Amino acid sequence: MELLKSKVEETSKKITQFGYEEGAGMTRLLYTKEWLSAQNTFLELFEKSGFQAYSDDVGNIYGRLEGTEYPDQVIMSGSHVDTVVNGGNLDGQFGIEAAFIAMQYLKDKHGSPKRTLEVVSLAEEEGSRFPYVFWGSKNIVGIADNDAVKGLTDNKGVNFVDAMKQCGFDFATERTVRKDIKAFVELHIEQGKVLETEGKQLGVVTSIAGQRRYNITLKGEANHAGTTPMGYRKDTVYAFSKICCQSIDKAKAEGDPLVLTFGKVVPKPNTVNVVPGDILFTMDCRHTDKEKLIGFSDQIIEDMKQICAEMEIEIDVDLWMDEEPIPMDPALVDLIDSTLEAKGANYKRMHSGAGHDAQIFAPRVPTGMIFIPSIAGISHNPAEQTDIDDLTVGVEALINVLYELAYN
Amino acid sequence: MELLKSKVEETSKKITQFGYEEGAGMTRLLYTKEWLSAQNTFLELFEKSGFQAYSDDVGNIYGRLEGTEYPDQVIMSGSHVDTVVNGGNLDGQFGIEAAFIAMQYLKDKHGSPKRTLEVVSLAEEEGSRFPYVFWGSKNIVGIADNDAVKGLTDNKGVNFVDAMKQCGFDFATERTVRKDIKAFVELHIEQGKVLETEGKQLGVVTSIAGQRRYNITLKGEANHAGTTPMGYRKDTVYAFSKICCQSIDKAKAEGDPLVLTFGKVVPKPNTVNVVPGDILFTMDCRHTDKEKLIGFSDQIIEDMKQICAEMEIEIDVDLWMDEEPIPMDPALVDLIDSTLEAKGANYKRMHSGAGHDAQIFAPRVPTGMIFIPSIAGISHNPAEQTDIDDLTVGVEALINVLYELAYN
Repeated sequence: MELLKSKVEETSKKITQFGYEEGAGMTRLLYTKEWLSAQNTFLELFEKSGFQAYSDDVGNIYGRLEGTEYPDQVIMSGSHVDTVVNGGNLDGQFGIEAAFIAMQYLKDKHGSPKRTLEVVSLAEEEGSRFPYVFWGSKNIVGIADNDAVKGLTDNKGVNFVDAMKQCGFDFATERTVRKDIKAFVELHIEQGKVLETEGKQLGVVTSIAGQRRYNITLKGEANHAGTTPMGYRKDTVYAFSKICCQSIDKAKAEGDPLVLTFGKVVPKPNTVNVVPGDILFTMDCRHTDKEKLIGFSDQIIEDMKQICAEMEIEIDVDLWMDEEPIPMDPALVDLIDSTLEAKGANYKRMHSGAGHDAQIFAPRVPTGMIFIPSIAGISHNPAEQTDIDDLTVGVEALINVLYELAYN
Repeated sequence: MELLKSKVEETSKKITQFGYEEGAGMTRLLYTKEWLSAQNTFLELFEKSGFQAYSDDVGNIYGRLEGTEYPDQVIMSGSHVDTVVNGGNLDGQFGIEAAFIAMQYLKDKHGSPKRTLEVVSLAEEEGSRFPYVFWGSKNIVGIADNDAVKGLTDNKGVNFVDAMKQCGFDFATERTVRKDIKAFVELHIEQGKVLETEGKQLGVVTSIAGQRRYNITLKGEANHAGTTPMGYRKDTVYAFSKICCQSIDKAKAEGDPLVLTFGKVVPKPNTVNVVPGDILFTMDCRHTDKEKLIGFSDQIIEDMKQICAEMEIEIDVDLWMDEEPIPMDPALVDLIDSTLEAKGANYKRMHSGAGHDAQIFAPRVPTGMIFIPSIAGISHNPAEQTDIDDLTVGVEALINVLYELAYN
């Protein structure tokens, strides 16, 4: 335990330096020099620890321990190396470090695995530099869309392909689809506070919630706040408030794992003495069950159209993100569960409300996820943190799961 | 009627040129060159028409027709010459033009009045250049606060006193309080659509609503929209929506003349996938009855504190404007009413939901107001407009009222 803890601290220190700024947290965007240094450092670390270290065309970094009995059956674990702007050093990064430390530990203690173990440092997940997400994992499973990224530029006008080339990478010469992955296991911070609130150290993820995101605009009538009697108004802030109250109340009645958020609200003209004639707001709805996600969100949209019709307010609904829920592999979930159970771990089965690389692997290879707690649920923020004991317990859990998968 | 109509068009054209821009409406701010040109033009117009034309220390412009029997009893009419940024050419300006045309008409038809008639072009009402309102009328009744304006600067950093001096004006050498005003009558566009909706051409204003304006901030907890179950949230947009719905419903139940507006809403961080942890919103409440204004708004604030307490959300309430309702002079209201009635005018008694110079005069001299319709209720906007027939009917009404006050 103490050895693992110091390994966690030592490895984190080596990687965190690339993109860290005091007070500003981590900013390590795809194909920047911080990103390249972090990937090169992982490559060296893997090599020095006796892994076969290599990179693929787009910059995913691998460390491989060849299996003695089933070398073509790969048990892969890792996460993404990129961060959001002003994020933390756990979201993504710790999943790579944990897999690396776990595999080192297993090799040192048990020698070569029966099945091949591979740690992966995925090139990109966040979409923080270019508006394209899961570039790393999508390349591994063969669903990356080169045409979609070719025209993308970052906020300084740098082209995606040029940024890639500056780091020494280019598109895969032919569409690679790894057929040898027998299981993918991702360890990640929860980025919520369910584990903390319930006093659990580990989460066994059963599925990743699907999500629908909307931009909704209402058009009423802007009027003088003093000279327009209440009965004459088409007040869009009032209409929005009715919609928000009714929808959130219905979401609470529906219960977990449904979540519904009205995160952005922009009335016009947005000034104290004018009845707001227009409003733009967003709705974000998530659920682990596809039918329930669709059924609930469709009903909420119908409700709000009804509210607007009664108020003679125009409504425009734009569903701009519609991602299905992704279940983890039931057999792998059970294996993780029973492994933790056998070790007497303090864990719970739960879903993920956030998106992860695991959702790209899951429809194609047996995939599972392990969560560790986030202090106060904070993530995508320099204050992102997890207790060192919880980090270490996470590595231990991964050791036990990877042992079951690669040594048994 | 046709003669008055052409007088209205001709006078409007002469004054509108100062500050008008195609597509951008009128912008004529205090102590700018457009403002000075407009005031000088009024001065010339008054002079040419046989009025004694003069200016006071701060730049209010007067045209005087000396009374034959009671020269010391002044019947004053007019409004403000300044506009908001990108406003129209009726708000303020037309009240001066109407008074000038009405007094010219009376002089031409009936000769000198028994009581002195004075048209006034008030220097400022809107507070659009410097954050101080009613500078013109406050100087006339002796309540202008020189110390309050001394330190003010416009958005280009120009000081109030310097701007004043550049136009050739300085503070009044001693505090002037006009004691000779027997009645003040202001004609103004309604800036609402009550008259239009009810098919009336004139409004007899009984009082100007008091208003209370608040900035209210709520502090809950910002959370990830995907990973935070509904039961864990302290969602300030949801709290605001509850407050808004309940408050507006109560305002509607209370009924006219109460109005309640939540015009500005700014959540933080205001993004689709974060439960909003903070929100700032404004509340604007108006009523013609002081006790009811205080009672209702105090109750609404208590309600929202209750809602926040139940949701464990912090609330901070800042009441930054608290203006009492101002009744017009009952005898003058009756005189205007009976005069219009006798002429068969199509009018209604009503209150004003907006503030006007009349509210500065009203506590000190007998004051009345006449409203004319605003097309679609639009004002403080380049699209501000009133039908030429309604403008002319307004001038006729003023002629009849001023006749009663100055010739009878």
